[in-house]
Amino acid sequence: MKPLILVSNDDGIQASGVHSLIDVLVKLGEVVVVCPDSPQSGQSMAITSNSPLRIKPVEDYNGAKMYKVNGTPVDCIKLAMHTVIDRKPDLVVSGINHGSNASINAMYSGTMGAAFEGCAFGIPSIGFSLTNHSADADFSPCLPFVEAISRQVLENGLPEGVALNVNIPDCIPHPTEMRLTKGCKGRWTHEYKEYVDPLGQKFYWLTGSFINEEPENTDTDEWCLSHGIVSVVPVALDRTAQIDDFKILQLLT
Amino acid sequence: MKPLILVSNDDGIQASGVHSLIDVLVKLGEVVVVCPDSPQSGQSMAITSNSPLRIKPVEDYNGAKMYKVNGTPVDCIKLAMHTVIDRKPDLVVSGINHGSNASINAMYSGTMGAAFEGCAFGIPSIGFSLTNHSADADFSPCLPFVEAISRQVLENGLPEGVALNVNIPDCIPHPTEMRLTKGCKGRWTHEYKEYVDPLGQKFYWLTGSFINEEPENTDTDEWCLSHGIVSVVPVALDRTAQIDDFKILQLLT
Repeated sequence: MKPLILVSNDDGIQASGVHSLIDVLVKLGEVVVVCPDSPQSGQSMAITSNSPLRIKPVEDYNGAKMYKVNGTPVDCIKLAMHTVIDRKPDLVVSGINHGSNASINAMYSGTMGAAFEGCAFGIPSIGFSLTNHSADADFSPCLPFVEAISRQVLENGLPEGVALNVNIPDCIPHPTEMRLTKGCKGRWTHEYKEYVDPLGQKFYWLTGSFINEEPENTDTDEWCLSHGIVSVVPVALDRTAQIDDFKILQLLT
Repeated sequence: MKPLILVSNDDGIQASGVHSLIDVLVKLGEVVVVCPDSPQSGQSMAITSNSPLRIKPVEDYNGAKMYKVNGTPVDCIKLAMHTVIDRKPDLVVSGINHGSNASINAMYSGTMGAAFEGCAFGIPSIGFSLTNHSADADFSPCLPFVEAISRQVLENGLPEGVALNVNIPDCIPHPTEMRLTKGCKGRWTHEYKEYVDPLGQKFYWLTGSFINEEPENTDTDEWCLSHGIVSVVPVALDRTAQIDDFKILQLLT
Protein backbone atom coordinates (compact mmCIF):
# COMPACT_ATOMS: atom_id res chain seq x y z
CA MET A 1 0.00 0.00 0.00
CA LYS A 2 1.31 3.44 -0.87
CA PRO A 3 2.04 5.83 2.01
CA LEU A 4 -0.90 8.07 2.88
CA ILE A 5 -0.06 11.77 3.00
CA LEU A 6 -2.47 14.33 4.46
CA VAL A 7 -1.90 17.86 3.19
CA SER A 8 -3.16 21.19 4.46
CA ASN A 9 -2.13 24.85 4.47
CA ASP A 10 -3.24 28.23 5.77
CA ASP A 11 -3.44 30.18 2.54
CA GLY A 12 -6.53 28.27 1.46
CA ILE A 13 -7.43 25.62 -1.09
CA GLN A 14 -6.90 28.04 -4.00
CA ALA A 15 -3.29 28.92 -3.14
CA SER A 16 -0.60 28.04 -5.62
CA GLY A 17 1.73 26.94 -2.80
CA VAL A 18 -0.36 23.92 -1.93
CA HIS A 19 -0.66 22.94 -5.59
CA SER A 20 3.14 22.98 -5.91
CA LEU A 21 3.32 20.86 -2.77
CA ILE A 22 0.85 18.34 -4.18
CA ASP A 23 2.86 18.09 -7.41
CA VAL A 24 5.78 16.77 -5.36
CA LEU A 25 3.91 14.59 -2.89
CA VAL A 26 1.90 12.58 -5.44
CA LYS A 27 5.25 11.04 -6.42
CA LEU A 28 5.64 9.74 -2.86
CA GLY A 29 2.22 8.40 -1.94
CA GLU A 30 -1.55 8.67 -1.93
CA VAL A 31 -2.37 12.32 -1.24
CA VAL A 32 -5.50 13.69 0.47
CA VAL A 33 -5.73 17.47 0.69
CA VAL A 34 -7.94 19.25 3.24
CA CYS A 35 -7.46 23.01 3.23
CA PRO A 36 -9.33 26.05 4.53
CA ASP A 37 -11.86 27.47 2.09
CA SER A 38 -10.43 30.96 2.68
CA PRO A 39 -7.06 32.42 3.76
CA GLN A 40 -6.26 31.58 7.39
CA SER A 41 -2.82 33.12 7.81
CA GLY A 42 -1.86 33.84 11.39
CA GLN A 43 -4.35 31.34 12.81
CA SER A 44 -1.71 29.53 14.86
CA MET A 45 -3.34 26.47 16.50
CA ALA A 46 -6.77 28.12 16.68
CA ILE A 47 -9.77 25.78 16.70
CA THR A 48 -13.40 26.50 15.92
CA SER A 49 -15.61 25.56 18.84
CA ASN A 50 -18.47 28.08 18.63
CA SER A 51 -19.79 27.39 15.15
CA PRO A 52 -20.40 24.43 12.84
CA LEU A 53 -17.84 23.12 10.38
CA ARG A 54 -18.37 21.57 6.99
CA ILE A 55 -16.02 19.58 4.79
CA LYS A 56 -16.79 19.61 1.07
CA PRO A 57 -15.05 17.84 -1.81
CA VAL A 58 -13.67 19.97 -4.62
CA GLU A 59 -12.23 18.83 -7.94
CA ASP A 60 -9.30 16.39 -7.77
CA TYR A 61 -5.91 17.86 -8.59
CA ASN A 62 -3.06 15.83 -10.11
CA GLY A 63 -4.40 12.60 -8.63
CA ALA A 64 -4.96 14.04 -5.15
CA LYS A 65 -8.36 14.05 -3.45
CA MET A 66 -9.23 17.64 -2.51
CA TYR A 67 -11.54 18.97 0.22
CA LYS A 68 -12.22 22.38 1.73
CA VAL A 69 -13.26 23.25 5.29
CA ASN A 70 -14.79 26.49 6.58
CA GLY A 71 -12.29 26.67 9.41
CA THR A 72 -8.71 27.00 10.53
CA PRO A 73 -5.75 24.82 9.53
CA VAL A 74 -6.07 22.85 12.80
CA ASP A 75 -9.78 22.35 12.08
CA CYS A 76 -8.80 20.96 8.67
CA ILE A 77 -6.51 18.32 10.17
CA LYS A 78 -8.96 17.38 12.93
CA LEU A 79 -11.96 17.18 10.63
CA ALA A 80 -9.99 15.32 7.96
CA MET A 81 -8.99 12.71 10.54
CA HIS A 82 -12.60 12.45 11.69
CA THR A 83 -14.17 12.14 8.24
CA VAL A 84 -12.29 11.49 5.00
CA ILE A 85 -9.15 9.78 6.36
CA ASP A 86 -9.75 6.07 6.94
CA ARG A 87 -6.28 4.98 8.13
CA LYS A 88 -3.54 6.75 10.04
CA PRO A 89 -1.57 8.92 7.62
CA ASP A 90 2.14 8.26 7.30
CA LEU A 91 2.86 11.96 6.92
CA VAL A 92 1.18 15.33 7.37
CA VAL A 93 2.53 18.16 5.23
CA SER A 94 1.42 21.78 5.44
CA GLY A 95 2.20 24.56 2.99
CA ILE A 96 3.93 25.60 0.95
CA ASN A 97 3.25 28.84 2.80
CA HIS A 98 3.39 32.11 0.93
CA GLY A 99 5.78 33.88 3.31
CA SER A 100 8.36 33.11 5.98
CA ASN A 101 7.53 31.18 9.12
CA ALA A 102 10.95 31.61 10.66
CA SER A 103 11.65 32.95 14.15
CA ILE A 104 8.62 34.08 16.12
CA ASN A 105 6.43 33.87 13.01
CA ALA A 106 6.27 30.11 13.56
CA MET A 107 4.19 30.80 16.69
CA TYR A 108 1.46 32.69 14.81
CA SER A 109 1.61 30.51 11.72
CA GLY A 110 -1.45 28.58 10.59
CA THR A 111 0.83 26.52 8.38
CA MET A 112 2.72 25.37 11.45
CA GLY A 113 -0.59 25.03 13.33
CA ALA A 114 -1.60 22.27 10.91
CA ALA A 115 1.81 20.62 11.27
CA PHE A 116 1.60 20.72 15.07
CA GLU A 117 -1.87 19.20 14.89
CA GLY A 118 -0.54 16.36 12.76
CA CYS A 119 2.13 15.93 15.41
CA ALA A 120 -0.59 15.81 18.09
CA PHE A 121 -2.09 12.86 16.22
CA GLY A 122 1.28 11.11 16.45
CA ILE A 123 1.98 11.53 12.73
CA PRO A 124 5.35 12.76 11.40
CA SER A 125 4.54 16.31 10.28
CA ILE A 126 6.26 19.04 8.32
CA GLY A 127 5.47 22.67 7.52
CA PHE A 128 7.08 24.22 4.44
CA SER A 129 7.29 27.96 3.79
CA LEU A 130 8.83 30.13 1.09
CA THR A 131 10.02 33.61 2.04
CA ASN A 132 7.79 35.28 -0.55
CA HIS A 133 4.29 36.53 0.26
CA SER A 134 3.17 36.93 -3.34
CA ALA A 135 0.16 34.98 -4.51
CA ASP A 136 2.12 34.23 -7.70
CA ALA A 137 5.44 33.36 -6.03
CA ASP A 138 7.61 30.86 -7.90
CA PHE A 139 7.69 27.71 -5.77
CA SER A 140 9.87 25.68 -8.12
CA PRO A 141 13.11 26.26 -6.13
CA CYS A 142 11.37 24.70 -3.11
CA LEU A 143 10.48 21.46 -4.76
CA PRO A 144 13.76 19.52 -4.52
CA PHE A 145 13.86 20.29 -0.79
CA VAL A 146 10.21 19.41 -0.26
CA GLU A 147 10.79 16.08 -1.99
CA ALA A 148 14.05 15.21 -0.21
CA ILE A 149 12.78 16.09 3.26
CA SER A 150 9.36 14.49 2.80
CA ARG A 151 10.94 11.31 1.44
CA GLN A 152 13.36 11.06 4.36
CA VAL A 153 10.66 11.70 6.96
CA LEU A 154 8.47 9.04 5.33
CA GLU A 155 11.37 6.61 5.57
CA ASN A 156 12.72 7.49 9.01
CA GLY A 157 9.88 9.18 10.87
CA LEU A 158 10.46 11.91 13.44
CA PRO A 159 10.92 11.79 17.20
CA GLU A 160 7.64 11.69 19.14
CA GLY A 161 6.16 15.14 19.65
CA VAL A 162 8.52 16.82 17.20
CA ALA A 163 7.60 18.34 13.82
CA LEU A 164 9.75 20.14 11.27
CA ASN A 165 9.51 23.82 10.38
CA VAL A 166 11.19 24.19 6.99
CA ASN A 167 11.76 27.66 5.54
CA ILE A 168 13.10 28.13 2.04
CA PRO A 169 14.69 31.42 0.99
CA ASP A 170 13.35 33.08 -2.15
CA CYS A 171 16.68 34.10 -3.61
CA ILE A 172 18.86 34.15 -6.70
CA PRO A 173 20.81 31.95 -7.08
CA HIS A 174 18.33 29.37 -5.81
CA PRO A 175 19.27 27.58 -2.58
CA THR A 176 21.35 24.42 -2.86
CA GLU A 177 22.02 23.76 0.83
CA MET A 178 19.93 23.08 3.92
CA ARG A 179 20.85 23.14 7.58
CA LEU A 180 19.41 21.98 10.88
CA THR A 181 19.00 25.18 12.88
CA LYS A 182 16.90 26.82 15.58
CA GLY A 183 14.27 29.50 15.84
CA CYS A 184 15.88 32.95 15.92
CA LYS A 185 15.07 35.38 18.70
CA GLY A 186 13.09 38.10 17.02
CA ARG A 187 10.10 40.34 17.41
CA TRP A 188 7.82 42.67 15.52
CA THR A 189 7.66 46.41 16.01
CA HIS A 190 5.39 49.20 14.71
CA GLU A 191 2.72 46.56 14.48
CA TYR A 192 -0.30 48.65 13.51
CA LYS A 193 -1.22 51.19 10.93
CA GLU A 194 -3.68 53.65 12.40
CA TYR A 195 -6.73 54.95 10.50
CA VAL A 196 -9.69 57.17 11.25
CA ASP A 197 -13.09 56.07 9.94
CA PRO A 198 -15.65 58.49 8.43
CA LEU A 199 -17.25 58.87 11.88
CA GLY A 200 -13.96 59.98 13.42
CA GLN A 201 -13.27 56.70 15.23
CA LYS A 202 -9.81 55.17 15.14
CA PHE A 203 -9.15 51.69 13.82
CA TYR A 204 -5.98 49.65 13.39
CA TRP A 205 -4.61 47.20 10.86
CA LEU A 206 -1.82 44.74 11.58
CA THR A 207 1.48 45.44 9.84
CA GLY A 208 4.98 45.86 11.27
CA SER A 209 8.69 45.37 10.87
CA PHE A 210 10.55 42.27 11.97
CA ILE A 211 13.61 42.74 14.16
CA ASN A 212 16.21 39.97 14.36
CA GLU A 213 17.48 40.15 17.93
CA GLU A 214 20.50 37.95 17.31
CA PRO A 215 21.70 38.85 13.80
CA GLU A 216 25.26 37.65 14.48
CA ASN A 217 24.13 34.17 15.52
CA THR A 218 24.90 31.88 12.59
CA ASP A 219 22.93 29.02 14.17
CA THR A 220 19.45 30.46 13.50
CA ASP A 221 16.78 30.09 10.86
CA GLU A 222 16.96 33.81 10.02
CA TRP A 223 20.71 33.65 9.44
CA CYS A 224 20.31 30.75 7.05
CA LEU A 225 17.50 32.43 5.14
CA SER A 226 19.48 35.64 4.74
CA HIS A 227 22.40 33.60 3.41
CA GLY A 228 20.45 31.61 0.83
CA ILE A 229 20.29 28.41 2.90
CA VAL A 230 17.18 26.34 3.59
CA SER A 231 16.43 26.19 7.34
CA VAL A 232 15.10 23.04 9.02
CA VAL A 233 14.02 23.63 12.63
CA PRO A 234 12.77 20.70 14.73
CA VAL A 235 9.88 22.09 16.78
CA ALA A 236 8.17 20.57 19.80
CA LEU A 237 4.41 20.32 20.27
CA ASP A 238 4.73 20.45 24.06
CA ARG A 239 6.04 23.78 25.29
CA THR A 240 7.17 22.73 28.77
CA ALA A 241 10.39 24.69 29.26
CA GLN A 242 13.55 22.71 29.89
CA ILE A 243 14.75 24.89 32.71
CA ASP A 244 15.82 24.43 36.28
CA ASP A 245 15.70 27.97 37.52
CA PHE A 246 15.59 28.80 41.18
CA LYS A 247 13.43 31.83 40.52
CA ILE A 248 10.63 29.54 39.42
CA LEU A 249 11.28 27.01 42.13
CA GLN A 250 10.93 29.78 44.71
CA LEU A 251 7.30 29.94 43.73
CA LEU A 252 6.75 26.64 45.42
CA THR A 253 8.40 27.36 48.75
CA MET B 1 5.65 54.06 40.89
CA LYS B 2 3.37 51.07 41.30
CA PRO B 3 4.03 48.05 39.07
CA LEU B 4 2.02 48.10 35.85
CA ILE B 5 0.03 44.94 35.19
CA LEU B 6 -1.58 44.25 31.81
CA VAL B 7 -4.48 41.80 31.98
CA SER B 8 -6.27 39.90 29.25
CA ASN B 9 -8.21 36.67 28.80
CA ASP B 10 -9.97 34.62 26.15
CA ASP B 11 -13.44 34.38 27.64
CA GLY B 12 -14.10 38.04 26.90
CA ILE B 13 -14.42 41.25 28.89
CA GLN B 14 -17.71 40.12 30.48
CA ALA B 15 -16.31 36.92 31.99
CA SER B 16 -16.36 36.57 35.76
CA GLY B 17 -12.89 34.96 35.71
CA VAL B 18 -11.17 38.17 34.64
CA HIS B 19 -13.06 40.16 37.26
CA SER B 20 -11.85 37.79 39.98
CA LEU B 21 -8.34 38.19 38.59
CA ILE B 22 -8.58 41.98 38.70
CA ASP B 23 -9.79 41.86 42.32
CA VAL B 24 -6.47 40.26 43.24
CA LEU B 25 -4.14 42.23 40.98
CA VAL B 26 -5.31 45.72 42.00
CA LYS B 27 -3.68 44.94 45.36
CA LEU B 28 -0.33 44.50 43.59
CA GLY B 29 -0.17 47.37 41.13
CA GLU B 30 -1.80 49.58 38.52
CA VAL B 31 -4.01 47.35 36.39
CA VAL B 32 -4.96 47.88 32.74
CA VAL B 33 -7.34 45.31 31.27
CA VAL B 34 -7.66 44.70 27.53
CA CYS B 35 -9.91 41.77 26.69
CA PRO B 36 -11.73 40.45 23.64
CA ASP B 37 -15.24 41.84 23.21
CA SER B 38 -16.54 38.29 22.68
CA PRO B 39 -15.49 34.78 23.70
CA GLN B 40 -12.24 33.71 22.02
CA SER B 41 -11.63 30.30 23.52
CA GLY B 42 -9.35 28.08 21.47
CA GLN B 43 -7.76 30.98 19.61
CA SER B 44 -4.22 29.92 20.52
CA MET B 45 -1.81 32.62 19.27
CA ALA B 46 -4.06 33.63 16.35
CA ILE B 47 -3.68 37.19 15.08
CA THR B 48 -6.08 39.25 13.01
CA SER B 49 -4.41 40.44 9.83
CA ASN B 50 -7.25 40.58 7.32
CA SER B 51 -9.61 43.00 9.04
CA PRO B 52 -9.47 46.17 11.13
CA LEU B 53 -9.26 46.18 14.90
CA ARG B 54 -10.72 48.66 17.36
CA ILE B 55 -9.98 49.20 21.02
CA LYS B 56 -12.73 50.83 23.05
CA PRO B 57 -12.83 51.82 26.73
CA VAL B 58 -15.51 50.33 28.91
CA GLU B 59 -16.42 51.23 32.47
CA ASP B 60 -13.61 50.99 35.04
CA TYR B 61 -13.79 48.02 37.39
CA ASN B 62 -12.40 48.06 40.94
CA GLY B 63 -9.84 50.74 40.02
CA ALA B 64 -8.69 49.02 36.83
CA LYS B 65 -8.91 50.68 33.43
CA MET B 66 -10.91 48.44 31.12
CA TYR B 67 -10.86 48.14 27.31
CA LYS B 68 -12.32 45.74 24.78
CA VAL B 69 -10.94 44.71 21.38
CA ASN B 70 -12.78 43.03 18.50
CA GLY B 71 -10.06 40.42 18.15
CA THR B 72 -8.14 37.54 19.65
CA PRO B 73 -6.26 37.46 22.95
CA VAL B 74 -2.97 38.05 21.11
CA ASP B 75 -4.55 41.00 19.30
CA CYS B 76 -5.51 42.40 22.71
CA ILE B 77 -1.95 42.30 24.01
CA LYS B 78 -0.46 43.69 20.78
CA LEU B 79 -3.01 46.48 20.44
CA ALA B 80 -2.81 47.34 24.15
CA MET B 81 0.96 47.73 23.83
CA HIS B 82 0.51 49.88 20.74
CA THR B 83 -2.17 52.17 22.15
CA VAL B 84 -3.18 52.41 25.82
CA ILE B 85 0.03 51.15 27.49
CA ASP B 86 2.58 53.95 27.83
CA ARG B 87 5.39 52.12 29.65
CA LYS B 88 6.59 48.54 29.61
CA PRO B 89 4.34 46.50 31.90
CA ASP B 90 5.97 44.66 34.77
CA LEU B 91 3.63 41.73 34.38
CA VAL B 92 1.11 40.32 31.93
CA VAL B 93 -1.60 38.11 33.41
CA SER B 94 -4.23 36.23 31.41
CA GLY B 95 -7.33 34.54 32.76
CA ILE B 96 -8.69 33.32 34.98
CA ASN B 97 -9.83 30.93 32.29
CA HIS B 98 -13.12 29.12 32.63
CA GLY B 99 -11.78 25.61 32.04
CA SER B 100 -8.52 23.67 32.16
CA ASN B 101 -5.53 24.59 30.05
CA ALA B 102 -3.46 21.61 31.12
CA SER B 103 -1.75 19.14 28.79
CA ILE B 104 -2.35 19.69 25.08
CA ASN B 105 -5.11 22.21 25.83
CA ALA B 106 -2.38 24.77 26.50
CA MET B 107 -1.56 24.68 22.77
CA TYR B 108 -5.07 25.69 21.68
CA SER B 109 -5.66 28.07 24.56
CA GLY B 110 -6.32 31.73 23.90
CA THR B 111 -5.58 32.39 27.57
CA MET B 112 -2.09 31.03 27.06
CA GLY B 113 -1.90 32.84 23.69
CA ALA B 114 -2.10 36.15 25.53
CA ALA B 115 0.51 35.00 28.05
CA PHE B 116 2.87 33.90 25.27
CA GLU B 117 2.39 37.26 23.55
CA GLY B 118 3.34 39.03 26.78
CA CYS B 119 6.40 36.81 26.85
CA ALA B 120 7.19 37.81 23.26
CA PHE B 121 7.28 41.43 24.45
CA GLY B 122 9.86 40.42 27.06
CA ILE B 123 7.40 40.79 29.93
CA PRO B 124 7.02 38.17 32.69
CA SER B 125 3.69 36.56 31.85
CA ILE B 126 1.30 34.14 33.50
CA GLY B 127 -1.87 32.37 32.40
CA PHE B 128 -4.29 31.18 35.09
CA SER B 129 -7.05 28.64 34.53
CA LEU B 130 -9.64 26.95 36.74
CA THR B 131 -10.81 23.45 35.79
CA ASN B 132 -14.43 24.51 35.59
CA HIS B 133 -16.07 25.65 32.35
CA SER B 134 -19.15 27.21 33.96
CA ALA B 135 -19.81 30.88 33.37
CA ASP B 136 -20.68 31.13 37.07
CA ALA B 137 -17.74 29.07 38.38
CA ASP B 138 -16.52 30.00 41.87
CA PHE B 139 -13.06 31.50 41.44
CA SER B 140 -12.45 32.24 45.11
CA PRO B 141 -10.27 29.13 45.69
CA CYS B 142 -7.94 30.41 42.95
CA LEU B 143 -7.28 33.77 44.50
CA PRO B 144 -4.59 32.93 47.09
CA PHE B 145 -2.59 31.17 44.36
CA VAL B 146 -3.08 33.99 41.87
CA GLU B 147 -1.87 36.47 44.45
CA ALA B 148 1.13 34.44 45.66
CA ILE B 149 2.37 33.57 42.17
CA SER B 150 1.78 37.04 40.72
CA ARG B 151 3.55 38.65 43.66
CA GLN B 152 6.56 36.38 43.33
CA VAL B 153 6.83 36.86 39.58
CA LEU B 154 6.62 40.64 40.06
CA GLU B 155 9.46 40.41 42.56
CA ASN B 156 11.69 37.87 40.82
CA GLY B 157 10.74 37.95 37.16
CA LEU B 158 10.88 34.87 34.94
CA PRO B 159 13.62 33.48 32.71
CA GLU B 160 13.70 35.07 29.25
CA GLY B 161 11.26 33.46 26.85
CA VAL B 162 9.45 31.51 29.58
CA ALA B 163 5.88 32.07 30.81
CA LEU B 164 3.87 30.22 33.43
CA ASN B 165 0.82 28.07 32.76
CA VAL B 166 -1.01 27.76 36.08
CA ASN B 167 -3.98 25.42 36.39
CA ILE B 168 -6.09 25.30 39.51
CA PRO B 169 -8.29 22.30 40.29
CA ASP B 170 -11.94 22.97 41.04
CA CYS B 171 -12.29 20.55 43.92
CA ILE B 172 -13.52 20.07 47.46
CA PRO B 173 -11.60 20.48 49.68
CA HIS B 174 -10.05 23.50 47.97
CA PRO B 175 -6.40 23.13 46.91
CA THR B 176 -3.76 24.08 49.47
CA GLU B 177 -0.64 22.98 47.58
CA MET B 178 1.03 23.85 44.30
CA ARG B 179 3.77 22.09 42.36
CA LEU B 180 6.14 22.81 39.50
CA THR B 181 5.24 20.25 36.88
CA LYS B 182 5.17 19.60 33.15
CA GLY B 183 2.59 19.34 30.41
CA CYS B 184 1.05 15.88 30.36
CA LYS B 185 1.01 13.83 27.17
CA GLY B 186 -2.61 13.74 26.18
CA ARG B 187 -4.95 13.96 23.24
CA TRP B 188 -8.58 14.38 22.32
CA THR B 189 -10.74 11.71 20.73
CA HIS B 190 -14.27 11.62 19.25
CA GLU B 191 -13.75 15.27 18.46
CA TYR B 192 -16.89 16.05 16.50
CA LYS B 193 -20.60 15.63 16.88
CA GLU B 194 -22.16 15.06 13.50
CA TYR B 195 -25.42 16.69 12.38
CA VAL B 196 -27.50 16.81 9.24
CA ASP B 197 -28.97 20.15 8.22
CA PRO B 198 -32.52 20.55 6.81
CA LEU B 199 -31.09 20.26 3.28
CA GLY B 200 -29.52 16.90 4.06
CA GLN B 201 -25.95 18.22 4.30
CA LYS B 202 -23.68 17.10 7.11
CA PHE B 203 -22.06 19.52 9.51
CA TYR B 204 -19.82 19.04 12.52
CA TRP B 205 -19.39 20.66 15.92
CA LEU B 206 -16.25 20.35 18.02
CA THR B 207 -16.57 18.28 21.19
CA GLY B 208 -14.56 15.29 22.38
CA SER B 209 -13.07 13.35 25.25
CA PHE B 210 -9.63 13.99 26.67
CA ILE B 211 -7.29 11.02 27.05
CA ASN B 212 -4.39 11.21 29.49
CA GLU B 213 -1.65 9.18 27.82
CA GLU B 214 0.53 8.97 30.93
CA PRO B 215 -1.93 8.63 33.83
CA GLU B 216 0.68 6.96 36.08
CA ASN B 217 3.17 9.82 35.71
CA THR B 218 3.01 11.83 38.94
CA ASP B 219 5.13 14.62 37.43
CA THR B 220 2.42 16.07 35.15
CA ASP B 221 -0.12 18.85 35.32
CA GLU B 222 -2.98 16.39 34.86
CA TRP B 223 -1.82 14.25 37.78
CA CYS B 224 -1.68 17.28 40.04
CA LEU B 225 -5.12 18.50 38.99
CA SER B 226 -6.68 15.10 39.57
CA HIS B 227 -5.11 15.05 43.05
CA GLY B 228 -6.30 18.50 44.13
CA ILE B 229 -2.92 20.21 43.60
CA VAL B 230 -2.32 23.46 41.69
CA SER B 231 -0.06 22.89 38.67
CA VAL B 232 2.58 25.44 37.62
CA VAL B 233 4.17 24.61 34.24
CA PRO B 234 6.97 26.82 32.89
CA VAL B 235 6.31 27.07 29.14
CA ALA B 236 8.62 28.32 26.40
CA LEU B 237 7.65 30.77 23.69
CA ASP B 238 10.19 29.31 21.27
CA ARG B 239 9.37 25.76 20.26
CA THR B 240 12.77 24.69 18.94
CA ALA B 241 13.08 21.10 20.14
CA GLN B 242 16.00 20.24 22.39
CA ILE B 243 16.91 17.09 20.56
CA ASP B 244 19.96 15.61 18.93
CA ASP B 245 18.45 12.85 16.91
CA PHE B 246 20.30 11.21 14.08
CA LYS B 247 17.08 10.67 12.19
CA ILE B 248 16.73 14.41 11.81
CA LEU B 249 20.40 14.94 11.13
CA GLN B 250 20.16 12.43 8.30
CA LEU B 251 18.01 14.97 6.53
CA LEU B 252 21.01 17.13 6.00
CA THR B 253 23.38 14.58 4.55
